[in-house]
Amino acid sequence: MKFNDEYFMEKALELSKNGIGFTNPNPLVGALIVKNGDIIGAGYHKQYGKEHAEINAFNSAKENVEGSTMYITLEPCSHHGKTPPCVNEIIKRGIKRVVIAMEDPNPLVSGRGINLLLENGIDVKVGVKKEKAEKINEIFIKYIKNNRPFCILKAGMSLDGKIATYTGDSKWITNIDSRMYSHKLRHRVSGITVGINTVLKDNPTLNTRIKNEKCKSPIRIILDSHGRIPIESNVLNTLDIAETIVVVTEDARKENIKKIRSIGAEVIISPLKQGKVDLNFLMNELGKRKIDSLLIEGGGEVNFSFLKEGLVDKVIFFIAPKLIGGVSSKTPVEGKGVGLLKNTPQLKNINTFKLGEDVVIEGYL
Amino acid sequence: MKFNDEYFMEKALELSKNGIGFTNPNPLVGALIVKNGDIIGAGYHKQYGKEHAEINAFNSAKENVEGSTMYITLEPCSHHGKTPPCVNEIIKRGIKRVVIAMEDPNPLVSGRGINLLLENGIDVKVGVKKEKAEKINEIFIKYIKNNRPFCILKAGMSLDGKIATYTGDSKWITNIDSRMYSHKLRHRVSGITVGINTVLKDNPTLNTRIKNEKCKSPIRIILDSHGRIPIESNVLNTLDIAETIVVVTEDARKENIKKIRSIGAEVIISPLKQGKVDLNFLMNELGKRKIDSLLIEGGGEVNFSFLKEGLVDKVIFFIAPKLIGGVSSKTPVEGKGVGLLKNTPQLKNINTFKLGEDVVIEGYL
Repeated sequence: MKFNDEYFMEKALELSKNGIGFTNPNPLVGALIVKNGDIIGAGYHKQYGKEHAEINAFNSAKENVEGSTMYITLEPCSHHGKTPPCVNEIIKRGIKRVVIAMEDPNPLVSGRGINLLLENGIDVKVGVKKEKAEKINEIFIKYIKNNRPFCILKAGMSLDGKIATYTGDSKWITNIDSRMYSHKLRHRVSGITVGINTVLKDNPTLNTRIKNEKCKSPIRIILDSHGRIPIESNVLNTLDIAETIVVVTEDARKENIKKIRSIGAEVIISPLKQGKVDLNFLMNELGKRKIDSLLIEGGGEVNFSFLKEGLVDKVIFFIAPKLIGGVSSKTPVEGKGVGLLKNTPQLKNINTFKLGEDVVIEGYL
Repeated sequence: MKFNDEYFMEKALELSKNGIGFTNPNPLVGALIVKNGDIIGAGYHKQYGKEHAEINAFNSAKENVEGSTMYITLEPCSHHGKTPPCVNEIIKRGIKRVVIAMEDPNPLVSGRGINLLLENGIDVKVGVKKEKAEKINEIFIKYIKNNRPFCILKAGMSLDGKIATYTGDSKWITNIDSRMYSHKLRHRVSGITVGINTVLKDNPTLNTRIKNEKCKSPIRIILDSHGRIPIESNVLNTLDIAETIVVVTEDARKENIKKIRSIGAEVIISPLKQGKVDLNFLMNELGKRKIDSLLIEGGGEVNFSFLKEGLVDKVIFFIAPKLIGGVSSKTPVEGKGVGLLKNTPQLKNINTFKLGEDVVIEGYL
């Protein structure tokens, strides 16, 4: 009973996670080849543009894979992209049975790979551990369908909902475990965004800092309507570790834009929307740049703007067990706010866990 | 293995909880009599001033208890209070062995009951499920040592730390399960407190509403420095369901005080402390009135005052998975706030659980 389809798919799913942070905007995929109950090949998609999981699994196999069962966490591709279609290879190698966690979410190709396998007499089973597979690839699913980033609103706050004391002290509210988890989120996503006020006040670098592990930093996206960002700010002085995109509006002065571009940062000029960056326009622009995911790290004004526009897909709050108080202390979501409770965005699929004594609450909009 | 001391003590502890809300300021106590592995008697302390758990257990026994083992969640009393000492009864009945979860926390009598049992040749074991026993009687332990109420700060808020929208809409942020749990808290405690602004704005009744269950409402304690409370307010118009104490300062006008007293509510006149009620003075006054526990239901100013004075023992936050936003929306702890993070009250022994999709976080100061 232990070595059933669920067992092997679980292994393939865990394997797929090794690609986290490196495959965007491609999906995370894991593949296992099983013959007579033994795993004889295993692979995962390691990096954008490189071999798919299936091919890595075939390459790892030390014996003939003919007649084997293949476990793949996502429907194999049937089209020529940066690599040849995996379906052809599966057929050619004589795989007898293919177990797939979820269909390709791309409506243009969904089901095509499965049909090709079936037409070639291969036994196919779809939907094993589908829910987990969809969660692992929640970024890919959103991006492939909408060509816009999957947006994660992240905040660290005290139990009474403050992100700083009334004097502005904010380092650190959450514990080291929460902060490490946040850096893993940065590694996971393609882009990270803050407002210009956060840059002016905190001068963050917004890079990924994980000790003793290979990691990548996301592209920094600074919302800066008037192009006020100082050239000496950290996000503009560390272009060697990650790109920075400054998003200004048509209101920004040309010399500001020129200055930013001159040091190698990109500038996106957004149409004005109520005096600010048009976030919907921006999402399309980021999508075009293959930014499949965006971590929104506030402050409260920026966070509310994304929520108001209905752009947030997922929320992760790190809650430190402290009470800060203060009628003027900053909170994670500000702006005008919602007027009536019945119009309040409601989160679904709430998940909660502890990191040390901090409590994490995550949910979906 | 199953029917060991821990097993029977667990049963006695669960039994003790039947007294919740009715025994204050007495402890919750459960007692079992076990003979040859069978429970032949069981009792709990049902109500303040009534028989102790041990006596109820003896009275329930249908066979001779001589030679039995007795499980008691708290050290039996050795002094004449409202009832005769239980230790005498245990000795008289020929109990052979007594297992006790925790010693009496009252430093004046702690260990006396145990010594008397030992002196009479009874085998005694202390400390079985001590931690759980202490948690169940956290109110009693605080009160018996300090003669002041155990203070529980309770708040219901959105995930982004708001207790109302910017327009003041606050009904309801948390779900029905959280609100039911809050009513059980009201049943549990002897007193409940809010500030006059909450009375003027929401006109709450602050009673306990639990369907189909016997429950009691706590004494309402209204912090009202100037005695502004309207005579027609709900807390003054429902004195038949629970007492109301209005706490004013020396600044309050005599006729206001007279008016409140004339309808049967009590008035406590507090010395001024920075223009407000002296909460330390108040805690002593409430202790004298046998109020062993106080549920603090805010608003933000009152909550911060209690925190600032270091009077809060426990915090329970109900977090609804919604995002309300708003730079001017009310938050659960306001006032001036703490200036530096290093001076922030830090909660310990954090416990978190879900009530439907709401997340509850509780901890101790």
